[in-house]
Amino acid sequence: MSTDTNADADDESTSKCGASSTDTETETSSSESKCGASSNETDDSSSTKCGASSSSDSSSSSSCGASSSDDSGSNEKEVGATIEDFDAEPGQLIAVGLGPGHPEGMTERAKDALLEADHIVGYTTYIELIPDEITDEAEDIYDTPMCGEVSRTEESIDRALAGNDVAIVGSGDPNVYALAGLALEILESKGATASMVDFEVVPGVPAAQSCGARLGAPLVNDTVSVSLSDHLVPMPEIESRLHSVASENFTITIYNPWSRKRRENFQKACEILLTHRDPDTPVGIVHGAGREDEQVMITELEELEELGESEIIDMTTTIVVGTEDTYVWDDRMVTPRGYETKYDY
Amino acid sequence: MSTDTNADADDESTSKCGASSTDTETETSSSESKCGASSNETDDSSSTKCGASSSSDSSSSSSCGASSSDDSGSNEKEVGATIEDFDAEPGQLIAVGLGPGHPEGMTERAKDALLEADHIVGYTTYIELIPDEITDEAEDIYDTPMCGEVSRTEESIDRALAGNDVAIVGSGDPNVYALAGLALEILESKGATASMVDFEVVPGVPAAQSCGARLGAPLVNDTVSVSLSDHLVPMPEIESRLHSVASENFTITIYNPWSRKRRENFQKACEILLTHRDPDTPVGIVHGAGREDEQVMITELEELEELGESEIIDMTTTIVVGTEDTYVWDDRMVTPRGYETKYDY
Repeated sequence: MSTDTNADADDESTSKCGASSTDTETETSSSESKCGASSNETDDSSSTKCGASSSSDSSSSSSCGASSSDDSGSNEKEVGATIEDFDAEPGQLIAVGLGPGHPEGMTERAKDALLEADHIVGYTTYIELIPDEITDEAEDIYDTPMCGEVSRTEESIDRALAGNDVAIVGSGDPNVYALAGLALEILESKGATASMVDFEVVPGVPAAQSCGARLGAPLVNDTVSVSLSDHLVPMPEIESRLHSVASENFTITIYNPWSRKRRENFQKACEILLTHRDPDTPVGIVHGAGREDEQVMITELEELEELGESEIIDMTTTIVVGTEDTYVWDDRMVTPRGYETKYDY
Repeated sequence: MSTDTNADADDESTSKCGASSTDTETETSSSESKCGASSNETDDSSSTKCGASSSSDSSSSSSCGASSSDDSGSNEKEVGATIEDFDAEPGQLIAVGLGPGHPEGMTERAKDALLEADHIVGYTTYIELIPDEITDEAEDIYDTPMCGEVSRTEESIDRALAGNDVAIVGSGDPNVYALAGLALEILESKGATASMVDFEVVPGVPAAQSCGARLGAPLVNDTVSVSLSDHLVPMPEIESRLHSVASENFTITIYNPWSRKRRENFQKACEILLTHRDPDTPVGIVHGAGREDEQVMITELEELEELGESEIIDMTTTIVVGTEDTYVWDDRMVTPRGYETKYDY
C-alpha cells in the first residue's frame, strides 16, 4: 500500500483548500476558530474556520475551501500563519505511521501517541483506519478527502502552534514518501522550529515490508524503493535512478506505479527494467494489502507492462521486482540470503 | 538497529551447534525430544535434544552443541531432518518482526502471533526483548546467544514439522536482511513446502525507519538499503552497488556497517560515498535505537570514516547517508519532498 496516495490528489488542489487561512479578515469570535491566526482556543469542536468540517467523528468530510465562511481569498500558495501570529505555548506535533492500515498492523506506540493527542489530522481514508476507541478520545479530528498533503500538514502545524497536541497520520511510515519531511519544511517556513513543537516521528511498517510479507520473502537483501510519481521529481531523474539500480542486484520496490495521467511513466519503467533484467524475473504485485479487497499476484517481468491496464495495478499498488537470484516456490517469491553457498541445507 | 547482527556470529559457528541434530542415534525416550526425528510430542519443556537448553523462561542460554547429550557428531553442515522423518501433522511456522526492540514498537499482530505460538525461537537478545506476559504463555522458548541463524531457523522448522505452532523472531522486519528467505530455503531443502506449515510473515518496523525516525525526516524520497556484511555477498559486489546508488539521489541506509574483522569494508564504503557525494553531506548515525544506551549523532560524510573507530559505530549501528538535498535543521536531518519547488511555504 503506497503511502503517497495523495500524489494525484495534489495535482487537483493547487490551492491549499482554505484549510489554513489565517488572514486577519477571518478572525471572528474565538468560539469558532481552532487554528491559524486566532490564538483563543476553544473546546467547541463543531466547526473550524479552515474550510473543512471537523468533528470528533472520524467520518467527517471536507469541502476544500468551497463552502468556508472564510472569504479572504484563501487560495494563495503562500504560507498562512507564521510563528508571530501565535501567542500560546505550542503543543506537540507528532507524525504517526499507521502501517498497512488495519488496527493490528499499528504499533503500540502509534496507538498511544494517537490516544494522547488532542487533535488528529490526516487524509480521510487513513483517519477511517484508526479504531473508534482511539478517535473517540480526541478533542477534534481534521480530515480531508480531496486536498493535498501540504494544506493538511500546515493545518496540523498551526494547531500545534496554537497550543494543541496534534498527531498527523499517514499510512505506512512517516518517513517513506510521506509527511515527516514536509512537516519539518513547513515548520521552518513559518519561523518555528521542530523543538518548539517537540516534533517526533512514530515509525510504522512501510508498504515495502507489508507487501513483501504477503509475497513471501522477496526483499531479504539489499533493496531499493523508487516512486514513479513525477509530481515532485522529474521523470528523467526517476529513469536514471531505475537504470542505476536495475543494473545491480537490488530488489526494487515500486511505489505509486500507475495512474491514468502517468501511464507512460509505468511503461517506461517496465522498459528500463527489461533492459537490465531477465524477462522471467519474478515480480510481486500487491493491491490493498491486508484489506478485504486485497489482491496479490506473482508474475514475470515481461508480463508487467500489460498488467498496468488491469485493476490490480493503480496508484495504491506496491510492486516488488525480484533480483536475478529471486525465484518462485510454492506460490511465494523467495530471494535467497546467500547461505546456500556456504551451508548445505 | 541492524537485523543482521548474526553476521559475525555465523562466522564463529560453522556447525549448526547441534541444535537440530536428528541422527537416529539420538532418539531416546519421547519425553525428552521436542524436535527432529522423534515424532512423539511431549509437554515436557524442561529439556530438548537439540544441544541448547530451553525453558519457558526467556533467559535461557545455549551451549552450541558443546554440552549436548547428543553424541552423534552433530557438527555437520548438512540438513538434519527431512520431511520423511516426521509423522505428525505439521504446525504453523510464522516469522515475526519485533521492530526496534521495545514492546511499544511491536505491532498488535506481532504480539498476537507470539501469544498464539506454542514455541518461540530466536536469538537470545531478541527473545529478551519480548514482554514476559507473552513469553510466559509459550510452551517452550528456544534461544541461542552464539550460534547462527541457520541452526535456529532449521530448529524452528523441525519443531513446526513435528506438529508445534512455532514463531521465529528477529528484530526489525523478517524480510530485511533477516530470516524469512532463509526459512523458505530451508523448508524447501527438507522436502517440505511453505504451505505445509502455513508459513506466514508478520512484518515489523525495519531499522531504516526506526533510526530514521530518531534522526528527523532523512528518508522521505527514493531510498536504498545496503549491508556492508560480506559474509554472504562478496565485497566487490557491495562496492558496485554502492557506486550505483551513491551516484544517484538516493538516501542510503547502511546496515551492518562495521566490525573488527571488516574495518576495510567500512573504509571502502566511505571512500566510495565521497567519490560521489559532497563531503558535507549530512549523515545520521543511530546506535541502539530506543534502548537505554541509545546514541544518535548527525555528522558530515567526511567525518564518517574516522567515527568507525568510535563506540557509536559497530555492527548494530544504522547509518543514514543523506542526498544532495538533505540538510540539517534544528538538530534534525531533513530530506525535502520537493514541495518547495511547487508551493511557496
